Amino acid sequence: MLDIKNPIEARKVIRKNEYRNQTAGTANKYVQGNLCILPSKYAMDFASFCQKNPKPCPLIGFGTKGDPSLKDLGDIDIRTDVPQYRIWEKGKIIDEPYDIKKYWNEDLTTFVLGCSMSFELPLIEAGIPIQHIENDTIVPMYRTSIDCEPAGQFSGKLVVSMRPLNSKDAIRSIQISSRFPAVHGAPIHLGDPSEIGIKDIMNPEYGDPPKAFKNNEIPVFWACGVTPQSVLQDSKPDFCITHAPGKMLITDKLNNDLAAL
Amino acid sequence: MLDIKNPIEARKVIRKNEYRNQTAGTANKYVQGNLCILPSKYAMDFASFCQKNPKPCPLIGFGTKGDPSLKDLGDIDIRTDVPQYRIWEKGKIIDEPYDIKKYWNEDLTTFVLGCSMSFELPLIEAGIPIQHIENDTIVPMYRTSIDCEPAGQFSGKLVVSMRPLNSKDAIRSIQISSRFPAVHGAPIHLGDPSEIGIKDIMNPEYGDPPKAFKNNEIPVFWACGVTPQSVLQDSKPDFCITHAPGKMLITDKLNNDLAAL
Repeated sequence: MLDIKNPIEARKVIRKNEYRNQTAGTANKYVQGNLCILPSKYAMDFASFCQKNPKPCPLIGFGTKGDPSLKDLGDIDIRTDVPQYRIWEKGKIIDEPYDIKKYWNEDLTTFVLGCSMSFELPLIEAGIPIQHIENDTIVPMYRTSIDCEPAGQFSGKLVVSMRPLNSKDAIRSIQISSRFPAVHGAPIHLGDPSEIGIKDIMNPEYGDPPKAFKNNEIPVFWACGVTPQSVLQDSKPDFCITHAPGKMLITDKLNNDLAAL
Repeated sequence: MLDIKNPIEARKVIRKNEYRNQTAGTANKYVQGNLCILPSKYAMDFASFCQKNPKPCPLIGFGTKGDPSLKDLGDIDIRTDVPQYRIWEKGKIIDEPYDIKKYWNEDLTTFVLGCSMSFELPLIEAGIPIQHIENDTIVPMYRTSIDCEPAGQFSGKLVVSMRPLNSKDAIRSIQISSRFPAVHGAPIHLGDPSEIGIKDIMNPEYGDPPKAFKNNEIPVFWACGVTPQSVLQDSKPDFCITHAPGKMLITDKLNNDLAAL
């Protein structure tokens, strides 16, 4: 873990390619974002897709065509400030570089989407144990049977993240995450996974499998920022760039600034 | 049902003993209250009990010793303004009169506690079906294994009301009822009834049994204003007066005035 509390300092290290790992826990009072960079011909459709699907795709940053800075989110150069990237061509990964200087061009537009880390800290601060954090694993994520609202060429299934919680913590987690509509907000489901098309809760499509459920634990499901990656895989644009899973953009925005109340 | 929207008009009818039935649906934008009237020697302990148990016993009105009015809640004479009362001696019901003029005395203090009707209307307005209202039955209520915080001679088990909801509505109902901490607030439990000591969900201790659960429905449990009646039954004060179940005090306070946000 990159143990730096200040987001500007953390980005400096990442910018120099001195840290190339996952960003969970780094500058943890600050918003981290999912990244998606697209050629201009796709930009309006993708913006529209985010607008129609605010729970999985909460847009917290929107660059100007050809401009690698994101002034709203801090002194950011998107070409260098993420630990690792993925370069996609027609839905396939062709490279996983540590900067994208050689891929950047004047036609690209940057999108930054909120991520659940922003409400996990308030959950932990409320005394709610988060299994995947305690085990230092990646949150289990599942492709559901729920269709996103399509926009232009972008369509696909909703991906959800899952946290096993007892009933009391499930209720409290609904209250707390409701305060953060800009980072997925309240859960979209709890209880029976098959109701949203999840066949095997122990076998997630993304992330690590959960531990066996305790008797009093129920699965609680939040819309997940991996949804756009899954949609990009399906929709197969000629070209796009995302962050590598878990290796997010660290911004200067406080998590608490995203709280609706 | 007493189909009057204005709480002052509704109380006038009740005051004249022209309506003696349950008050559900009457003046439904206004707060209705559970009633508890106690001799002064118990008043401080009961006030303390309410303070220690705000979820089941949210105190919304607190009279002055010997004074039957409740100016905070409207132009109320507590001796006449409830459709039917119960007179208790040592935990046993000895009378169920339509007014308490002959029982009132200078030593009595009135307590009014919030009730779940105040958040049921916002639930219905959010499109959430409430089974017991749709079936025109009384909400099922259960004595749990959860101890209230004792205060002086008052102690006993928490009573909960239960509404069967699908997962989506359960999540939404947690958000909506969280806005109303003064009337029980968020649920205290959902899912497995045995975790809170309920042996048979189809066999409630108070109110009417629920209908058979649909496949996608889970039981959602709120702290219930019947708790103080159950506690009074156990704690057996020499004398007390309550409302008869379902026949509540209608106040001039808007439900929306109780919303925390």
